[in-house]
Amino acid sequence: MSNRIITISREFGSGGRTIGRMTAEKLGIPCYDSELIEKIAEESGLTKEYIEERGEHAVHGSWLANAFSSERSFYGNSTQDYLWSVQRQVIEELAEKESCVIVGRCADYILSDNADCLKVFIHADMEKRAERIVKVYGETGESPKKRVQDKDKRRKSYYQFYTNMEWGKAQNYHIALDSGALGIEKCVEVIRELY
Amino acid sequence: MSNRIITISREFGSGGRTIGRMTAEKLGIPCYDSELIEKIAEESGLTKEYIEERGEHAVHGSWLANAFSSERSFYGNSTQDYLWSVQRQVIEELAEKESCVIVGRCADYILSDNADCLKVFIHADMEKRAERIVKVYGETGESPKKRVQDKDKRRKSYYQFYTNMEWGKAQNYHIALDSGALGIEKCVEVIRELY
Repeated sequence: MSNRIITISREFGSGGRTIGRMTAEKLGIPCYDSELIEKIAEESGLTKEYIEERGEHAVHGSWLANAFSSERSFYGNSTQDYLWSVQRQVIEELAEKESCVIVGRCADYILSDNADCLKVFIHADMEKRAERIVKVYGETGESPKKRVQDKDKRRKSYYQFYTNMEWGKAQNYHIALDSGALGIEKCVEVIRELY
Repeated sequence: MSNRIITISREFGSGGRTIGRMTAEKLGIPCYDSELIEKIAEESGLTKEYIEERGEHAVHGSWLANAFSSERSFYGNSTQDYLWSVQRQVIEELAEKESCVIVGRCADYILSDNADCLKVFIHADMEKRAERIVKVYGETGESPKKRVQDKDKRRKSYYQFYTNMEWGKAQNYHIALDSGALGIEKCVEVIRELY
């Protein structure tokens, strides 16, 4: 029997990570999120901090300039491109090895040819997300809304650069859920049932 | 107790209309689709054909020119604008009267301030939709794909003109489902459960 994968793409602060973890737990399969970063670190030799920051977010400022010209590695690619290729390989290997939930990192795109992959997108309105990030990650000097907007913008830009697809477009996912309106438990229930 | 509404927006050929009807049947509430057109015809004095064609689709050709300048009614608005306002009123009245499912006609936007409204978007890939429209509506001189693309384009353009929002953007709906991958029965099941 082939492995069945759930990929979770999510807006920052929507609780997508929590939904992934809870769904995996209910289904008795592993969830790759921070574990994924560790695996990518092992394979790539890059630091976890770099992967966390650059593995699904465009860099601040001249992102395109960075992607195209700076940070050249030994192989002539930018470090960001190198990270993308390792990330891609790790995700493909995981999907071949076992049924699992994978959160973020463009896994939906990377596994799009995988017949048994349920592609999920989780979103919520700004109010709810701003509230949640303060609860989960604490306060910083910046306003919660600004933090949400900034992170979304960088994820979106990264996603579009590497996949050439539109982030958050319903048509790219099998199911998209508003966790703010429906609640996290309900989202988990729906995904579990579809799986 | 306030009424609970389900609005279904859908890509052409995705089976959204069937999903709406089946969900309503299971929940024992009415589904407004062609019935909506009849009500709007009664209220507006416009023909059903005009409403069917112009109540959620941009017209072919110079749509913006049409919307802004031609077909002026007695009141100085274009007939299309007049239809929009009647449509809006009929949908608001329905939502006040009873719990129901409403298919299409920007009902999601019109009822966006309605606290107890579950906003659903149904989509499917081109292959599946082209196949479905031939099965449901039969062959015409045009290729099925061309018919799907054309209808989507006109719905999208109409929706954006009157709502100023992006049609098919996951964030605008509580739940978006790929009926091609998940199957119509499964979509009905999920919506019924969320309701």
